Amino acid sequence: MKDIIRIGMVGGGEGAFIGAVHRMAARLDGQYRLVAGAFSSDAQRSRASGMALGIEPTRAYADWRAMLDGEAQRADGIEAVVIVTPNHLHARVARDCLAAGLHVLCDKPLANTLDEAHELLQVARASQRLFGVTYTYSGYPLVRHARALVAAGEIGEIRSVQVRYAQDWLSTPVEMAGNKQAAWRSDPALAGEGGAIADIGTHAYHLARYVSGLDAQALLADLTSAVTGRRVDDNAHVLLRYANGARGMLWASQTAPGNANNLELAIYGSRGGLNWRQEAPDELWFAPLGESARVIRRGDASLCAAATTATRVPMGHPEGYLEAFANLYADFAAAIHAHRAGESHTHANRFPTIEDGLDGMRFIRAALTSSREGGVWLPLR
Amino acid sequence: MKDIIRIGMVGGGEGAFIGAVHRMAARLDGQYRLVAGAFSSDAQRSRASGMALGIEPTRAYADWRAMLDGEAQRADGIEAVVIVTPNHLHARVARDCLAAGLHVLCDKPLANTLDEAHELLQVARASQRLFGVTYTYSGYPLVRHARALVAAGEIGEIRSVQVRYAQDWLSTPVEMAGNKQAAWRSDPALAGEGGAIADIGTHAYHLARYVSGLDAQALLADLTSAVTGRRVDDNAHVLLRYANGARGMLWASQTAPGNANNLELAIYGSRGGLNWRQEAPDELWFAPLGESARVIRRGDASLCAAATTATRVPMGHPEGYLEAFANLYADFAAAIHAHRAGESHTHANRFPTIEDGLDGMRFIRAALTSSREGGVWLPLR
Amino acid sequence: MKDIIRIGMVGGGEGAFIGAVHRMAARLDGQYRLVAGAFSSDAQRSRASGMALGIEPTRAYADWRAMLDGEAQRADGIEAVVIVTPNHLHARVARDCLAAGLHVLCDKPLANTLDEAHELLQVARASQRLFGVTYTYSGYPLVRHARALVAAGEIGEIRSVQVRYAQDWLSTPVEMAGNKQAAWRSDPALAGEGGAIADIGTHAYHLARYVSGLDAQALLADLTSAVTGRRVDDNAHVLLRYANGARGMLWASQTAPGNANNLELAIYGSRGGLNWRQEAPDELWFAPLGESARVIRRGDASLCAAATTATRVPMGHPEGYLEAFANLYADFAAAIHAHRAGESHTHANRFPTIEDGLDGMRFIRAALTSSREGGVWLPLR
Amino acid sequence: MKDIIRIGMVGGGEGAFIGAVHRMAARLDGQYRLVAGAFSSDAQRSRASGMALGIEPTRAYADWRAMLDGEAQRADGIEAVVIVTPNHLHARVARDCLAAGLHVLCDKPLANTLDEAHELLQVARASQRLFGVTYTYSGYPLVRHARALVAAGEIGEIRSVQVRYAQDWLSTPVEMAGNKQAAWRSDPALAGEGGAIADIGTHAYHLARYVSGLDAQALLADLTSAVTGRRVDDNAHVLLRYANGARGMLWASQTAPGNANNLELAIYGSRGGLNWRQEAPDELWFAPLGESARVIRRGDASLCAAATTATRVPMGHPEGYLEAFANLYADFAAAIHAHRAGESHTHANRFPTIEDGLDGMRFIRAALTSSREGGVWLPLR
Repeated sequence: MKDIIRIGMVGGGEGAFIGAVHRMAARLDGQYRLVAGAFSSDAQRSRASGMALGIEPTRAYADWRAMLDGEAQRADGIEAVVIVTPNHLHARVARDCLAAGLHVLCDKPLANTLDEAHELLQVARASQRLFGVTYTYSGYPLVRHARALVAAGEIGEIRSVQVRYAQDWLSTPVEMAGNKQAAWRSDPALAGEGGAIADIGTHAYHLARYVSGLDAQALLADLTSAVTGRRVDDNAHVLLRYANGARGMLWASQTAPGNANNLELAIYGSRGGLNWRQEAPDELWFAPLGESARVIRRGDASLCAAATTATRVPMGHPEGYLEAFANLYADFAAAIHAHRAGESHTHANRFPTIEDGLDGMRFIRAALTSSREGGVWLPLR
Repeated sequence: MKDIIRIGMVGGGEGAFIGAVHRMAARLDGQYRLVAGAFSSDAQRSRASGMALGIEPTRAYADWRAMLDGEAQRADGIEAVVIVTPNHLHARVARDCLAAGLHVLCDKPLANTLDEAHELLQVARASQRLFGVTYTYSGYPLVRHARALVAAGEIGEIRSVQVRYAQDWLSTPVEMAGNKQAAWRSDPALAGEGGAIADIGTHAYHLARYVSGLDAQALLADLTSAVTGRRVDDNAHVLLRYANGARGMLWASQTAPGNANNLELAIYGSRGGLNWRQEAPDELWFAPLGESARVIRRGDASLCAAATTATRVPMGHPEGYLEAFANLYADFAAAIHAHRAGESHTHANRFPTIEDGLDGMRFIRAALTSSREGGVWLPLR
Repeated sequence: MKDIIRIGMVGGGEGAFIGAVHRMAARLDGQYRLVAGAFSSDAQRSRASGMALGIEPTRAYADWRAMLDGEAQRADGIEAVVIVTPNHLHARVARDCLAAGLHVLCDKPLANTLDEAHELLQVARASQRLFGVTYTYSGYPLVRHARALVAAGEIGEIRSVQVRYAQDWLSTPVEMAGNKQAAWRSDPALAGEGGAIADIGTHAYHLARYVSGLDAQALLADLTSAVTGRRVDDNAHVLLRYANGARGMLWASQTAPGNANNLELAIYGSRGGLNWRQEAPDELWFAPLGESARVIRRGDASLCAAATTATRVPMGHPEGYLEAFANLYADFAAAIHAHRAGESHTHANRFPTIEDGLDGMRFIRAALTSSREGGVWLPLR
Repeated sequence: MKDIIRIGMVGGGEGAFIGAVHRMAARLDGQYRLVAGAFSSDAQRSRASGMALGIEPTRAYADWRAMLDGEAQRADGIEAVVIVTPNHLHARVARDCLAAGLHVLCDKPLANTLDEAHELLQVARASQRLFGVTYTYSGYPLVRHARALVAAGEIGEIRSVQVRYAQDWLSTPVEMAGNKQAAWRSDPALAGEGGAIADIGTHAYHLARYVSGLDAQALLADLTSAVTGRRVDDNAHVLLRYANGARGMLWASQTAPGNANNLELAIYGSRGGLNWRQEAPDELWFAPLGESARVIRRGDASLCAAATTATRVPMGHPEGYLEAFANLYADFAAAIHAHRAGESHTHANRFPTIEDGLDGMRFIRAALTSSREGGVWLPLR
């Protein structure tokens, strides 16, 4: 057994959604122990959250700076920090953590502005610390296998990329009706200027990029707010152009009734097509041109190593979102172990990094600008 | 029993695809009899096709003009013509048929150019004859029910329209390898300048318009040819804007491996969403906001009259493409019977008309222009 | 064009379900013309039905004997008869038709009793006339391909057969509430002693036998009537044993809410498994042991000839029940043409024959007896 | 935060499947800590497994008796034991654990013989300790909701129960080819006399019983071994009869190619039907008679409390097998907390108990006997 990794958390107090998800993901494989936290900007609430989580009282801090100070003085202090605050704090907290010599696992979007993200990247590179960004969906085994199929040329030259992420929970103005999650996410001061484009569009964009291996060269976006009074977009239509001539379409919506977390990716090439849906993540549909389509499942003999090692239970016993999340944690743990040993850890670089986080910021920025200018083409790199 | 309607066909000789489909659709309910035809521009082939179809030899004509002349001299001459030639002849043949006092049922696209389509509309209106255009998919019972749900306000104000029509049969340059269907469809002189956008994009566009009841105000298109050497587009990414602020995305591709005739429409509104797929046409997915989704089936008690009367066998016994096609024929027959009786036939105007055909031409024209100008917004009306 | 086949119909007057289905199936490919009929045991209704169908008034007969007499005296008399009466008349009418030298296409079940079926078989064999029984589901292209896969050894030695046919239209006592279809089907005097076991169980049984190529050796049945007062079974649980040691389960129900015509067959062997559902008939799921499952579709390149020739429109344009029915008619037509020419017609023997009808009677008889004796094993041959 | 529950594990050493699953399930919500174990009958392997799991070396015991002795002497000794040995040891270990005053969570089947199971029940009742049996599938939220729908009368009086559990991993004689899981499961001395009927049939039986709320009165089974040389059944066809006249069919197979863990339950009643599949566990199909079917999802507003509280992430983010398993652990934890407090814990009795385990043994016993006697009806209670 390798030593358990001691982590602290910033944000994620009672009532938060994503903090609890991170904690479950971290627990699943028994490689981490959450020993400290600044769970809320309210010191009392942070303490209460820490107590509910079984954290030692002295290690439930009033804010992240106090946590970094306190932990630095302990022999058994934390090695890594998980950042699950509202978006506007991501970069600030991350910088301080890196400065304190800690590894960072941070929610997306990486920062509040593109400039801030660029600065953070410099800090991170200088720090020699690990920096992961939780683009969760790349943790699914069959997403990894899809990427391997594309990389192996199984669908040939890519021609069209179709990706969508549709939800419906913002179909009405819930942010004005007491929904806390909706409130901060639709407040530009806390979440950034992007709404659906930043909250889920960037996930769709990353997924397409991760599987296709292609960087879009240009983008055109048409963002709307379906709900009167909403301050950010809740429906985003985006066109993409790739260097090899391929084209892409991306749809992100939080006002599409009947959709919960309907993230779907299809990629078509000269030799075949593939399709994956997050709501049925244990199947990957693969159609070699001119042959019957295959339904590849999690435990199939043909599965690539990156998919197989990201699997915990046999095929037919469904794995889901928490397992995908835990796969990022497992990869991050492998990287930390390698870092401890002074090794490079190429095998572990499956988790999305700060570079991916920056790329996501670029996408959000370009989409917002394109839409504001009436829906025009803008370069992405 | 109302008198059987006698029809003639232009095009659709041996080896043609859509001609045989029209004939099966016309036969299904026993309301038509095909008694004459100019099945090929080659007189001998026309005769051979006529013979194979059980047409009296003298009524298998060398060309459509001969047919119009010959039939005009018979007491039992044809009343209506079905036009299933390559696209470039549609308008020319139709004009002559109208001039001969016949009703016309014509394949899409309506004409070779937008101007030609406008002229034809004038001729048709002056003729007082019926003119149907076979936008087949509006013949599906659950498409009609979807339209009724939207019209009844069941999904509220429309916010987003997502429509796609994906095929894969042009993934390789089959038009250069002897595929006759592919050859004429990718020859601008025979099929017009549009490829996928005209062949299937216009179907997707009509379907979205038919169900949503909305006319797009503006469009932006990014068309590509994935296959080297192809003279027309085979992949089309289109954004749409509607007068009420709603937005649409349309994807049409003939180079998407694994897709046969994957036409799918989803419409989202303020109160609900719905989804329909041509490849599983007997189901309509309907999600009222905040409730469990319903799977509406062909025989459900709740079905609207337009859907119920377009059904032949009980739910669970699948109906498909030919039945949808036959529904257009049935509606056209009802209109002809009303026309014979001198009645107006509002109940029969379910079949797509020449106005729909013109609208499709406008869409194709705008998409081609937008794409050529680099992917810019153009008004559609 | 081969000469059109002139047919007469017994039963199938206004309001009947299956008569209309037969007529559409017969029309679809233009190989038949319905020219005579005894559509109802009520002469007036028979005439009215004939008129609505465009039958010459003198050829809408008062009963089937009159039709046989009348047609025998015409040079253009019928060659074949379609029998769509309530079950108890099938055998009687069929015998007379054969005696009149006509080919017969008869609905299942073949007869009212097993003895009657045996007698009819003798008559049919002596007559040298063609005798088809409309076990419709064997007309689906992918059912034919499934049979070919099994025959080719693609799933190895068969081990388990799972077949079900579930409906819900008899979930309440509709036969006591004016539903005419339900009334005769639940009256032992008109439909025979079997309810669901005879109406749909025999379809499931035939489908399993057709695809597997196996004849069950023994059977055990547990039949129930879920609805109080119903005179026949409406839910049938049946176990099967095959000569090679394989086992089968068959479930037929007309009281399973949510099921319309949910006929599903799965067969598992030593090398693979396959699955087909009537409600999604254009797909066949095929899982070779140890490989990813394939979704075989109607137009796949790998399809066997028997499937390919039973297809009218390209893959992705759904075909359904009427097309499957029409495939039986097409095969029957091919056999008639061969019979006219004095040829044997091995290629045409795809349609189910009187032997299949007799086999179905044996199944129904054994199931009824097994169940009445408390659910015991009985030999089937 | 309630105090963490300290648990020990018997069995589940390196290479075992289900032990790892239990550990992940126990970790997910952070309510348990695994602090001791007798992971293998080989002392050295037990120690190695303990080390890999981060167990203190002195608490990785050579056998379960040593563990019970050792832990009894510690102030921080274990409170509960998880039993994941091969089947033949379940009852023996459980008895000793109860005698040591510990709560027990045991894999199914409960014991090696029905007599042993009866004895264990007496011991358990006398012990006043909690005893859970991991019939995992009752942990799925939508299974709990299905049970609630049935209990609330939403489908009316039950008429037919259809349940199946199909796998394919034993399609070839893998137990003779080095597969350790297969070897012990097909060895009657280690796994008991039942093969598929005991390994998965009992899961299907429990699921049907849990959701329907009905106890079968009689059973008839036809068990076979498809693979030559196999010592236990690998395909089981079972008929069931219920006191209210309802009937059931159960199919369990480990030789059905293409099935991984295809557990599916459908229940039909006088007012509606429902259907659930383990491989798509986040959906429950519910068809009220005469209405469109609903697709109930994990986060729907209508969900019952038992389902809602068994949910960790929002609808559309898939939950699976580990989450279902963790729900049993969560319920067991709630019961332990109540037990500590001297409270009765009616709310917590959602986890399957020793009574359920005994019922499963009864089912296995009856199925084996029925089949050996040629497939005859036997009473189940």
